[in-house]
Amino acid sequence: MNEIDRVIQLLSRLPGLGPRSARRAALYMVTRRESLMTPLAQSLKDASEAIAICGVCGNLDTRDPCSICADSTRDRSTICVVEQVGDLWALERTASFKGRYHVLGGVLSAIDGIGPEDLNIGSLVERCGGGSVTEIILATNLTVEGQTTAHYITERLAETGVKVTRLAHGVPVGGELDYLDDGTLSAALQARQALG
Amino acid sequence: MNEIDRVIQLLSRLPGLGPRSARRAALYMVTRRESLMTPLAQSLKDASEAIAICGVCGNLDTRDPCSICADSTRDRSTICVVEQVGDLWALERTASFKGRYHVLGGVLSAIDGIGPEDLNIGSLVERCGGGSVTEIILATNLTVEGQTTAHYITERLAETGVKVTRLAHGVPVGGELDYLDDGTLSAALQARQALG
Repeated sequence: MNEIDRVIQLLSRLPGLGPRSARRAALYMVTRRESLMTPLAQSLKDASEAIAICGVCGNLDTRDPCSICADSTRDRSTICVVEQVGDLWALERTASFKGRYHVLGGVLSAIDGIGPEDLNIGSLVERCGGGSVTEIILATNLTVEGQTTAHYITERLAETGVKVTRLAHGVPVGGELDYLDDGTLSAALQARQALG
Repeated sequence: MNEIDRVIQLLSRLPGLGPRSARRAALYMVTRRESLMTPLAQSLKDASEAIAICGVCGNLDTRDPCSICADSTRDRSTICVVEQVGDLWALERTASFKGRYHVLGGVLSAIDGIGPEDLNIGSLVERCGGGSVTEIILATNLTVEGQTTAHYITERLAETGVKVTRLAHGVPVGGELDYLDDGTLSAALQARQALG
């Protein structure tokens, strides 16, 4: 296999890229060697060498502790618990949360044989034991596994006396009722809020 | 800008990837550092260093002359003329052409100020002058610029006495007449073929 085929093969493993679009991307780069291909190779190498898992929250960053944990302006009393680093990034993009995070690294799953000891739950309980944390926001996905995990964490944290909350369920902003599933609609109905 | 943001920025410049899918691809790589990110960085570097433009046909390959020009089993008497390297790759994937290629590197365009001297037309005329070439297949795109370029090349090659052909126009395999444009349909009608 020559060097170009190897690039195509690796690119096609990225999410959202199949063999056809990987070939197109490779061809695009091949004709832009100086401006795109070489810089991308270098930046991937740099990132690959720099990336570290934050020892406090499990975030992936180019420093440890990560830039969120190291940021002294962020609220230490609130921790938002997410399944994966991607969820943390999604929440950060909203710029509406000023506390800290805790990345579980997955969800409890009997089928996949993932138990509490496989997730970063112990370290979360430890962080809550220090006395500075007053609220845990559970932001696991609304899947069966995500909710099971949220339930399990709630029980584990009961003894620490920390307040546990979860994200609101309801109609997405811009969503149309007609296209919403029954579960979301009934959740939105139950959690209705007073106006004015 | 940190190393991960730099990767996302460069990935988002690839065709078919926007900022959102570039972020997704970067996140996917970040969690597969050993198996994907480092190998991709290395293969991009290797390819970037190895790629050369074939001095004969203008193909991009990891050697010069390219593997097609260097392949002595391929027919020397037929040259297929294409606009871009991507067109050459597309024809090679069909595995139905056993001659050689010539990459123009673009098309004549008065608007973009691209004249014959900006394309690899002179070297094509030279290749036809050697006496071993008997047929030129014009495989430029069916755009105004592509057809103009094909017309220009036909005139330039008139003095060499080499036979000039072009790809057939017609109904695409698997195509439905109802959805075809008028131009293709009338071209297919004019070029109708006898059965049996």
